[in-house]
Amino acid sequence: MKNIKHSSKLHLVTTHLEALLNSQTLSYGAKLPSIRQLSRQLAVSTSTVVEAYERLLVQGLIYTRPGAGYYVAEKHNISDIHALKINPEREVDPLWISRQSLESSSDLLKPGCGWLPSSWMPEKLMRKAIKEVAQSSVTDLVTYPHPLGYLPLRQLLSRKASNSGVTVYAEQIMLMDSGTQALDLIFRLFLKDGDCVFIDDPCYFNFHALLKVHRLNIIAIPFEQDGPNIQAFQEAVQQWQPKLYLTNSALHNPTGAALSLYKAYQILKIVEQQHMVIIEDDIFADLEHHIAPRYAALGGFEHVIQVTSFSKTISAAIRCGAIMAKPIWIDRLINLKVATVFSHNTLNSKIIYAILTNSQYRRYVDHLKIKLQKHMTQTINRLTALDIQPWLIPTGGMFLWCQLPNQLNSTALSKACFKAGVMLAPGQVFSQSESAQHFLRFNVSQSQDPKIYQVLAENLSILTTDASR
Amino acid sequence: MKNIKHSSKLHLVTTHLEALLNSQTLSYGAKLPSIRQLSRQLAVSTSTVVEAYERLLVQGLIYTRPGAGYYVAEKHNISDIHALKINPEREVDPLWISRQSLESSSDLLKPGCGWLPSSWMPEKLMRKAIKEVAQSSVTDLVTYPHPLGYLPLRQLLSRKASNSGVTVYAEQIMLMDSGTQALDLIFRLFLKDGDCVFIDDPCYFNFHALLKVHRLNIIAIPFEQDGPNIQAFQEAVQQWQPKLYLTNSALHNPTGAALSLYKAYQILKIVEQQHMVIIEDDIFADLEHHIAPRYAALGGFEHVIQVTSFSKTISAAIRCGAIMAKPIWIDRLINLKVATVFSHNTLNSKIIYAILTNSQYRRYVDHLKIKLQKHMTQTINRLTALDIQPWLIPTGGMFLWCQLPNQLNSTALSKACFKAGVMLAPGQVFSQSESAQHFLRFNVSQSQDPKIYQVLAENLSILTTDASR
Repeated sequence: MKNIKHSSKLHLVTTHLEALLNSQTLSYGAKLPSIRQLSRQLAVSTSTVVEAYERLLVQGLIYTRPGAGYYVAEKHNISDIHALKINPEREVDPLWISRQSLESSSDLLKPGCGWLPSSWMPEKLMRKAIKEVAQSSVTDLVTYPHPLGYLPLRQLLSRKASNSGVTVYAEQIMLMDSGTQALDLIFRLFLKDGDCVFIDDPCYFNFHALLKVHRLNIIAIPFEQDGPNIQAFQEAVQQWQPKLYLTNSALHNPTGAALSLYKAYQILKIVEQQHMVIIEDDIFADLEHHIAPRYAALGGFEHVIQVTSFSKTISAAIRCGAIMAKPIWIDRLINLKVATVFSHNTLNSKIIYAILTNSQYRRYVDHLKIKLQKHMTQTINRLTALDIQPWLIPTGGMFLWCQLPNQLNSTALSKACFKAGVMLAPGQVFSQSESAQHFLRFNVSQSQDPKIYQVLAENLSILTTDASR
Repeated sequence: MKNIKHSSKLHLVTTHLEALLNSQTLSYGAKLPSIRQLSRQLAVSTSTVVEAYERLLVQGLIYTRPGAGYYVAEKHNISDIHALKINPEREVDPLWISRQSLESSSDLLKPGCGWLPSSWMPEKLMRKAIKEVAQSSVTDLVTYPHPLGYLPLRQLLSRKASNSGVTVYAEQIMLMDSGTQALDLIFRLFLKDGDCVFIDDPCYFNFHALLKVHRLNIIAIPFEQDGPNIQAFQEAVQQWQPKLYLTNSALHNPTGAALSLYKAYQILKIVEQQHMVIIEDDIFADLEHHIAPRYAALGGFEHVIQVTSFSKTISAAIRCGAIMAKPIWIDRLINLKVATVFSHNTLNSKIIYAILTNSQYRRYVDHLKIKLQKHMTQTINRLTALDIQPWLIPTGGMFLWCQLPNQLNSTALSKACFKAGVMLAPGQVFSQSESAQHFLRFNVSQSQDPKIYQVLAENLSILTTDASR
């Protein structure tokens, strides 16, 4: 009871002081009422006033000179003259989708983005797990973890990997702060400026952005409905002597395609012969209905490194990813990790572990997969009604790779729709090839609002008219 | 009441099943009791048995075939044949301290490490803040934040910066997952293979490790008790045309020295003339008793970038850092951030904000500074008793840079003490120069155990005898 009273009185004083500060009548350096004055004026104890001043002090809104009272601090941060504004004319490069969707306001519709709506995510599991983690030992709360990371999570990942036929020991797994960061670290292990790397054409746009930062020679191999074109891969290997091949396993981004065992075997043989390394980004594993072959299941970890993360099915707000590789590489990756990021978020690993081991999680994922399937069908129906045709009907996941009618240009369409409040994912950001310019990637979980199809229809019709002139 | 009963029954079933799995009588693929059998045997409801099986399922300890019961899963992770073992003979390079102290067991004494003991950290504030953050909006819990990060924390950092005379707008601040990651990103903006960077001699060992990853030409400028040697800096600039100068402001690591305004001005003039950039790593700001000059206070952000983090005074288990730079660089840094890590931990930013704005935080830091001061005096007394002499009496912080007697070699001493369970920080990891080989860095907060001084005394005496032979 006493606490409630104290807190309401504290609120009174704090509100009073904030009003004073915001009134602009007191400018920088102005003296604030003394503790005694204010205590008398508002009929509260001096300790309440002291507490209120302390709170404003820690927020930097006021400052103090010992023994001489409290003063108004400078108001730097009110200005927004330096605000970074979203530029709708931004060049459509591999960073276009990320930056527009991360920086834009929440009322933008985002069928082009790569994540699920908040309302689909396991909110309750998250809250419960965070509260549990608040009870951790003090060591876990405040000190650096072992560079490999939280052992129970690594052991769990080891067991989860066996679902897709992959044998990996907990000691071969290193936790990182995200899947992207994991890829970045691996590139540092193997590559230097100008080295050649293979990617799929099309592939996840951020692979382009990341490889560009490393100043690599990027060769894109045509990706077919069951994996890369073998002949193109073989020929490009002869010509370019690549060091790495970076790909998505499970559900391919952006196409939703799954690798066939036949292609996996062909590619792996070439990779082994050439002493290349396959980086297998496995972040969509939890969304699979049928388990597609993994290079790491077929060939082990001699020439393969796997990367995974939890941003797709748990949360994008807490970052956690993992690298699975052979021990000698893990040891070198630890060196690189310590040098470039020193450590990782170990509390997040514990949150992720608490969620993954909650029996509700499996039910949530099962439900999620069914929901995605339903939205997949709906989205296909609504797009084909506009003559936007899927390249492939995916067996799971959230992505649909679609071709526009009449060879229309998806970049032009995306720019026009962005101005109308709809963020699309044009083919150009996934692929440099001519043909990709007629494609779009749709995220079926973000494609429910009818406005999306209105805006699409209107702008398709404008583009068609323009094109026929 | 019902829940408690259910949970104790669930515990009964889970314990029973775990005992079965651990008994080794059931090997891979063995069928487990059916739900009905177990429910009868243990006199619990079938739903309790289902729940228990679900929990083992999500942990991957068992698997199921629909309609055909539960089976024992393969036990991959029990093996530790691939375990990474600590190598006491590891080469003493800039990663030596980090890897030995991160990977070693908790009974190692670590006067050489760079952080405070767990018991010194604000455990209660942490728990409270984490619980508060568990109540965040669902959007904050599961989705990506704006690339710049949580606005209230950036506004607070803007106000905190003014304590050291630095004017920075919230829009010029970008949150990252750590100070080290922030530095890494900045290097990517400005540098390519072979470019020249200046550091202090000695400097924080991980600067060496990080710069090495970037394959840079590293030039170390002698650091004196009030900043870099101006003449050496000037001459090296002419010779090497460096692009960056990376330094610690506030309390210099490892020396504990503070920059003088005179030197700050001289260096800044050279930097501006040469169109260089100063990277000012300001992570010890909260531990200062007297506020030392900052390059960003003197020259603004035209040629200066500041980096900060919270690992020293809040927690090393949740990662959060920040970059402060001019808007045009911030925009480019966002591109690099999205490409290389995509996003950052936004829940951590909220935890940090909750702690920093708790009025207890200021009291905790005030208390911490006094405690460090006390331990500083004690450590100096105990070291000088062994004829280990401080190079400088620092005005604050946790580090003490000391010289060994009789030109003894600190690397040899550190290797010997490591075998006796004491982890030192030999000069060689902070500096390539000859003279640093007689130095050690002590962390006064980790230097309380009398065993440290016993081990030091014994090994100093062995080394002295060896040297005089």
